[in-house]
Amino acid sequence: MVIDLNADLGEGFGVWRLGDDLALLDIVTSANVACGFHAGDPVTIRRTCAAAVDRGVAIGAQVSYRDLAHFGRREMDAEPEELCAEVLYQLAAVDGIARAMGGRVSYVKPHGALYNRICRDEVQAAAVIEAVADYDTSLPVLTLPGSVVHGVAAAEGVPTITEAFADRAYTAAGALVSRREPGAVIHDVATVSARAVRMAVEGRVTAVDGSAVVVSARSICVHGDTPDAVRLAQAVRDGLLEAGVVLQAFA
Amino acid sequence: MVIDLNADLGEGFGVWRLGDDLALLDIVTSANVACGFHAGDPVTIRRTCAAAVDRGVAIGAQVSYRDLAHFGRREMDAEPEELCAEVLYQLAAVDGIARAMGGRVSYVKPHGALYNRICRDEVQAAAVIEAVADYDTSLPVLTLPGSVVHGVAAAEGVPTITEAFADRAYTAAGALVSRREPGAVIHDVATVSARAVRMAVEGRVTAVDGSAVVVSARSICVHGDTPDAVRLAQAVRDGLLEAGVVLQAFA
Amino acid sequence: MVIDLNADLGEGFGVWRLGDDLALLDIVTSANVACGFHAGDPVTIRRTCAAAVDRGVAIGAQVSYRDLAHFGRREMDAEPEELCAEVLYQLAAVDGIARAMGGRVSYVKPHGALYNRICRDEVQAAAVIEAVADYDTSLPVLTLPGSVVHGVAAAEGVPTITEAFADRAYTAAGALVSRREPGAVIHDVATVSARAVRMAVEGRVTAVDGSAVVVSARSICVHGDTPDAVRLAQAVRDGLLEAGVVLQAFA
Amino acid sequence: MVIDLNADLGEGFGVWRLGDDLALLDIVTSANVACGFHAGDPVTIRRTCAAAVDRGVAIGAQVSYRDLAHFGRREMDAEPEELCAEVLYQLAAVDGIARAMGGRVSYVKPHGALYNRICRDEVQAAAVIEAVADYDTSLPVLTLPGSVVHGVAAAEGVPTITEAFADRAYTAAGALVSRREPGAVIHDVATVSARAVRMAVEGRVTAVDGSAVVVSARSICVHGDTPDAVRLAQAVRDGLLEAGVVLQAFA
Repeated sequence: MVIDLNADLGEGFGVWRLGDDLALLDIVTSANVACGFHAGDPVTIRRTCAAAVDRGVAIGAQVSYRDLAHFGRREMDAEPEELCAEVLYQLAAVDGIARAMGGRVSYVKPHGALYNRICRDEVQAAAVIEAVADYDTSLPVLTLPGSVVHGVAAAEGVPTITEAFADRAYTAAGALVSRREPGAVIHDVATVSARAVRMAVEGRVTAVDGSAVVVSARSICVHGDTPDAVRLAQAVRDGLLEAGVVLQAFA
Repeated sequence: MVIDLNADLGEGFGVWRLGDDLALLDIVTSANVACGFHAGDPVTIRRTCAAAVDRGVAIGAQVSYRDLAHFGRREMDAEPEELCAEVLYQLAAVDGIARAMGGRVSYVKPHGALYNRICRDEVQAAAVIEAVADYDTSLPVLTLPGSVVHGVAAAEGVPTITEAFADRAYTAAGALVSRREPGAVIHDVATVSARAVRMAVEGRVTAVDGSAVVVSARSICVHGDTPDAVRLAQAVRDGLLEAGVVLQAFA
Repeated sequence: MVIDLNADLGEGFGVWRLGDDLALLDIVTSANVACGFHAGDPVTIRRTCAAAVDRGVAIGAQVSYRDLAHFGRREMDAEPEELCAEVLYQLAAVDGIARAMGGRVSYVKPHGALYNRICRDEVQAAAVIEAVADYDTSLPVLTLPGSVVHGVAAAEGVPTITEAFADRAYTAAGALVSRREPGAVIHDVATVSARAVRMAVEGRVTAVDGSAVVVSARSICVHGDTPDAVRLAQAVRDGLLEAGVVLQAFA
Repeated sequence: MVIDLNADLGEGFGVWRLGDDLALLDIVTSANVACGFHAGDPVTIRRTCAAAVDRGVAIGAQVSYRDLAHFGRREMDAEPEELCAEVLYQLAAVDGIARAMGGRVSYVKPHGALYNRICRDEVQAAAVIEAVADYDTSLPVLTLPGSVVHGVAAAEGVPTITEAFADRAYTAAGALVSRREPGAVIHDVATVSARAVRMAVEGRVTAVDGSAVVVSARSICVHGDTPDAVRLAQAVRDGLLEAGVVLQAFA
């Protein structure tokens, strides 16, 4: 039983901070480092990469639409050539900084609206995968099981890794309950920790109708930007370790 | 007699263009590619790198202060950690794109106000050199002879390359005449071409007082953003070739 | 027979220019001034407003999504509160500058992807109209006949003005032929001028199937960003004047 | 005995927050609202203006260099025409939003590096004052006593208002101790409150050498972006009220 814990990190910009990066780096095994397009100024990227290297945490490039003003949360009708070049630019920038700090980018995790879009939009998924393939075909893309991007990546020889969300409710079909619906996000620490353990040990999670649905995940995502984020992430980590699960980056 | 011809390229942003990049790429041996902070969106960077690779033109990272609104022309009191991280980010981004296109960044040329600042500001010069050294100590920095950045680079083991300006007037002391003074920029095509030839063949240029001053330059910079830029650059190239000078990138 | 001629102006940013603003200001009666979100730095806005005031050309606020990198051409899933505040910010900024130059903003014309979006998206249309209503209920919004935004504006007491496009092909139903289809944009100067005259004099245009369709337009839009833009706009102006049409801003 | 209390507000951007705006709005009499160039997205500006109007707090335009990445803290060699247009743009944008919310901008307070620069740089001071004069000659500029901008403003007929800093150490000459020196910022709540009272009641403050120096101030600035900011500001307010000082905006 081996699982990875990933979280979004380095999501400040300039004077502004979001979340407690150093605390989270002591908990997770993979750090999705913001690349400057939705968050992440160069100083923050450099410090976050240095701190991740110090702790042996894997570094991922958290690529996004160019949208600092809205944190990459607005879906955009990006032209494929633009999107591909923008992803390549971000990936290269963070990988170069990571290497200068003694590490390297070992996976790619699209952020926010782009993450959601390429779960269903084949054209934008292809643009993202083209960028990854152009840069380094061996870099895996971390994404949701069952999304369109998996097929696109497979066709280009780019590996994909699936993730699950410990604090999100699932439908009986194995999909995430929309954030617009009540109960979509689970806040109780013990419940979230127990769900993470079940995901890692059984590969299942209790859906909103009480049924047990299969969740395919090599990684579990914990959030970093809420007030309780660190406590929740710590509980997930502690629960997994107590259950005998080995925490190990996939990359 | 060997000389390099360098020009600033890829200095558009989004819909906006500046200069005729493809025409200049057929003339120069080194392309200073804008990295996104004063100009240069990812699509433009990618296309410019691809076109440079096609023509065997060397690619340099034209790093700048973050200042799209003023084209990197405002001097800024940047903190060293910020400046270092910003230069590293730009350098890594363009190198990664260049590699994805089959080439690589083989030198660094600071842009505009940053270029001028590190000629005399040791602290900012050190920040730029630290970024280059962190990324790849073997990358030369292209800059003005006699500037502060040379000593800083030497101390860090980073090579420097000197350049001269075919269309700029020189003082008897070998410095550039300030752009604020009349006659600082030479527009006559034949004169500019003849000066470039003398620089390459004799290592000298005629100063404003008529004396011949030594100009140490492994590269000659031609400008790309004026209406006559291409014609002027072509005349410089033609003049050099006719004089038997070999045009060859330094990197 | 009275018609307004409008064009997009001030669409440079920093060192970058787009179109010949001063030439167009001698032709049109209404200037859609870029507000800084897709183009238009403050110096350009100030100069464009001053030049419009000098010539007695009406000033409109050409509001846009925040998207300098893609010139406001990407549709975005903007939240209504965000979009409303962004439109209000742009409108206020340009109106304040126009007033400092002795004029004022007398209408609003949404730009690019936002223009297209609010033709069919009631939520975003309502956000734009709320911003206009909050600022000055008497400011008309210039847009396409038959679009969703007209109904939304009417409900809020905000006037709308319709425009036609002299250089665009129309379907028999009176809609614009999509730019993706061949023949969508008409380049022949005489044809474009003749179509503008027919629009102004008869309120009709020849559709792609040869039929005459009704075009309701108090204003005709001419484009400013193509190489031939000024010549085309001048031909439209000359044709209208020769046909006895009075050129007069609607605002 | 009448004094104004001012603080910087609305200094978030997008998802990022800085300080507890609503708590500070219950304490101060004047709100320096960030205008979007160093901080302050349109939604935040709109909400901050609306909240200030609700509480009867005066609204000032906190204009800045264009520098989101560095929070307006880098001094820049801005050309006067650029700086003037940028200040005018910001001032107009926030005034328009304030008016839409039922209030208006009633003064201007330059931010950060621009504030410091115009205390000694006559050219940049003149550019800022030209913008204010172009917009509304009656708007006072809030700044440091004895700075260059006062003379420039007076020559243009623009009023100025002086401010003092309750939590900053003063030299015997009445200047602020540089932030680079130890003890420049006073953190003890009771001390800060007592200093504010002495400033308001006696027009004096105890300098670092123990002498009492005259401090000319119609307004006292309290900071909003430190963890203790609200507690400190509340103590200043409470101390002033207990001492019988009337808190009242100058504008």
